[in-house]
Amino acid sequence: MLATMGALGLAPTAEAASREPVYRAPRTGDFTLKGRAAARIVVVGGGIAGLTTAYELGKAGYDCTVLEARERTGGRNLTVRGGDSTTDLLGHRQTARFSDGQYMNAGPARIPQWMVTMDYCRELGVPVEVFTNSNASAYIYNEKAGMTAPVRYRTAKADMYGYVSELLAKATGRGALDAELTADDQQRLLEFLKSFGDIGSQLTYTGSEHRGFTVDPAAAGTPGVELGGLPSVSQVLSSGVGRYFSFEFGYDQAMLMFQPVGGMDRIPAALTRAIGPGRIRTGAVVQAITDKAHGVTVTYTQNGRTRAIDADYCVAALPPHILAKTSHNLGGAVQTALEAVKPSSAGKIALEYRSRWWESDHRIYGGITETDMDLSHIWYPSYGFHGARGTVIGYYNTGANADAYGNLTPAERERRAVAQGEKIHGAKYRTELASSFSHHWRQTPHLEGAWHSMAGGPDAPVFAPLNRAAGRVYFAGDYLSYADAWQHGAFTSARKVVTTLHARVLA
Amino acid sequence: MLATMGALGLAPTAEAASREPVYRAPRTGDFTLKGRAAARIVVVGGGIAGLTTAYELGKAGYDCTVLEARERTGGRNLTVRGGDSTTDLLGHRQTARFSDGQYMNAGPARIPQWMVTMDYCRELGVPVEVFTNSNASAYIYNEKAGMTAPVRYRTAKADMYGYVSELLAKATGRGALDAELTADDQQRLLEFLKSFGDIGSQLTYTGSEHRGFTVDPAAAGTPGVELGGLPSVSQVLSSGVGRYFSFEFGYDQAMLMFQPVGGMDRIPAALTRAIGPGRIRTGAVVQAITDKAHGVTVTYTQNGRTRAIDADYCVAALPPHILAKTSHNLGGAVQTALEAVKPSSAGKIALEYRSRWWESDHRIYGGITETDMDLSHIWYPSYGFHGARGTVIGYYNTGANADAYGNLTPAERERRAVAQGEKIHGAKYRTELASSFSHHWRQTPHLEGAWHSMAGGPDAPVFAPLNRAAGRVYFAGDYLSYADAWQHGAFTSARKVVTTLHARVLA
Repeated sequence: MLATMGALGLAPTAEAASREPVYRAPRTGDFTLKGRAAARIVVVGGGIAGLTTAYELGKAGYDCTVLEARERTGGRNLTVRGGDSTTDLLGHRQTARFSDGQYMNAGPARIPQWMVTMDYCRELGVPVEVFTNSNASAYIYNEKAGMTAPVRYRTAKADMYGYVSELLAKATGRGALDAELTADDQQRLLEFLKSFGDIGSQLTYTGSEHRGFTVDPAAAGTPGVELGGLPSVSQVLSSGVGRYFSFEFGYDQAMLMFQPVGGMDRIPAALTRAIGPGRIRTGAVVQAITDKAHGVTVTYTQNGRTRAIDADYCVAALPPHILAKTSHNLGGAVQTALEAVKPSSAGKIALEYRSRWWESDHRIYGGITETDMDLSHIWYPSYGFHGARGTVIGYYNTGANADAYGNLTPAERERRAVAQGEKIHGAKYRTELASSFSHHWRQTPHLEGAWHSMAGGPDAPVFAPLNRAAGRVYFAGDYLSYADAWQHGAFTSARKVVTTLHARVLA
Repeated sequence: MLATMGALGLAPTAEAASREPVYRAPRTGDFTLKGRAAARIVVVGGGIAGLTTAYELGKAGYDCTVLEARERTGGRNLTVRGGDSTTDLLGHRQTARFSDGQYMNAGPARIPQWMVTMDYCRELGVPVEVFTNSNASAYIYNEKAGMTAPVRYRTAKADMYGYVSELLAKATGRGALDAELTADDQQRLLEFLKSFGDIGSQLTYTGSEHRGFTVDPAAAGTPGVELGGLPSVSQVLSSGVGRYFSFEFGYDQAMLMFQPVGGMDRIPAALTRAIGPGRIRTGAVVQAITDKAHGVTVTYTQNGRTRAIDADYCVAALPPHILAKTSHNLGGAVQTALEAVKPSSAGKIALEYRSRWWESDHRIYGGITETDMDLSHIWYPSYGFHGARGTVIGYYNTGANADAYGNLTPAERERRAVAQGEKIHGAKYRTELASSFSHHWRQTPHLEGAWHSMAGGPDAPVFAPLNRAAGRVYFAGDYLSYADAWQHGAFTSARKVVTTLHARVLA
């Protein structure tokens, strides 16, 4: 048995080596050594994929121009600060009234350790800090399941894991698993369950300090009072609290996670600086992409005028459903593929508070509260701990829930979100509110989507025309990756296009 | 059933109100309103309990003097930076060679959200950041259990939770739990297990993306390769990886946890500033505490001279086993109690590296690796992410393991720790090492212990004489609390003494 235990692990050096296909950035020497000139590239779309394309090609001296329809780069990587204004496609106008230092990452907000987004933060000198993706002190509140008050994650886990351990111990004791487990294995399983469920030598769950305390242990004379009101196993199962536990086991959601200090848009800001702002044209709305025998022409409007730019190659890094509405001569198969990408809805509201009552009153420093109400998730901030003010994400929802909120006025969204959050947090959720700002991606000009639904995934046959060049036009974006909605997807898609295009230019 | 679901939660307002006995700090007005003068207090020991005593009494204008035997305040709250020197009781001399910005919290290093330590950070203006107490990307390596390579937490959890879910689903399907669970409950349990163990509708564990990937999902064409080598349930149980999982469920260890930005000693530094350095005498080794009819005299040596200080009251906030060796007239019951407190051993080594290879090569940004080797725990730093250098805690061990390391020379400790850590991390664990610094509390002058063993806990009858005044002498320290070894224990013990003493003075 010992000889096979190696299967449990993976030699660390081997693992490090095989983590991902090695990416090799283009270098100036690639051209000087070959006596070739770098090509002219027009990049359509200044989100993460477009910026990365220009940034990476720029390392080898390519002459890149980025056309961005919006007034700032970053695409869905959008950080909203005080004074920022938006008008959505439904005509809702908002100006954020956040205090200094307060912000909302309206799009991506968290970075797993393994994603290349972390590498770009390091390379670009964007400092990172922990994003608090899960917290034992945060709440679960399933109103539809009949819960009348929130329960903390620590308590919900203690109860579910306690009863699961008791049940499995009982079943094992009754011989129900004799076919699967040797006597030694059964003993080892019981040892695990004792610790995992805190069920003691009686193998019975009767509560645990894992649940928390109503009076915390303190000085002599104050041993603490454990949380009372132990629910039955039936109550725990009916409450549905357990449905949230596996979230943090996900490869893309497991802690530890990270965020740039000061806002996610520190990443596109750093890319923009590195590319050189002179190479980026904002407010440039592309009207047509025309692939020609020896180049590409992109026409666009900017400040009310129509302009055209010629290049050797084009990288189309705008949202596929926007490109589908744009004039092009890239062929029917490309158009069919673009139309097969369905944009998804998501929205968030930021609630700035005059005090950090969740820290002082609830002892919640970051993390996420889960509910079965239509606000879905409530995020406590991962920055500014102990500060005077703080900004909670009052809802982060998707699909029909996001559309329902998106169709409301910003004031109505706030009312609905606060009425729900108050059920969990009490009166301060309303009385301490300073201002709010909400954002919905389906209603956002030039983006019109949070992420994408693609039947069969990015390598399905219908999408093949987007995974290769259409003449001199390449396609990049998170949708052409296995990390849709993650910047990692945009980064790796751009790297793939850069690698392919650079090889063609050098060939 | 719905009516009883409230038992699952606790109304948040009620919870906030009952969190802890309310502490009311002394105020200047307490004296001016009563026409009484504040008393003179001598505090013996400038650790967290002693500093807090002087800080809190100082709010009402008490005339406090703190005598600290060591050259700096903080006690076991000790942050070691480059240039700091120590000589332990065995004669080992060390000078830390850490680079700028690198440090080691030799004592307490993490703060749970609920502890009053967080309140003091807020009150004193000490910024906090996340302490990374657990990380899905960190390793487990049980050499004695036969593991030949480390396994990541995410993989170990996926396998254990997967098999546990499969086994419980099978037992349930076989009717082994029909006495405990209704048909509805069984259905709900299976729904939970499907998600918790990622066992699918077959209710069988065959691996999961929770385990991780050898090639990460990336651009189209790279769906990723899930980690192979799925162990059997017997292998997982034999490996003992599950023994570490419940650590993060503990009320005092559950994430999220925090640390002061820049080092834990920001707390005593802030207390020291607030008290006023002029009220604190360092290098002042107490020789005798004499309780008298109308006051207390404390004699001490400083700079080779013997001095005495008279006060109305004394708070003895030095380690109990040190006080037990100090001359006093506090009675036999006090001495018996002091001698009944047994100091415990713990040690740490800081390994500063020339690169943050754990981040770049292993994608581990913070967290703790667990082993059954005698180094016990390896901590990756919670600060300086992506920086040029970083400092790993190469061992954090207790009891006999700590004593074994403590008896080695610092160079031998480094060799032993590096040889073990190399088994987990590969060659860079040795080749990238810049310098090390180790600290052992049992061998630390004037402290001589990491924490305490007290049969029956702090309220056992033998310790009663320490939980009340001995004449005009009070006792404070984490050992007189239910949070021994935590600053919370020292803070709350000090608050208790302050409250009692102040009431007596005002009476």
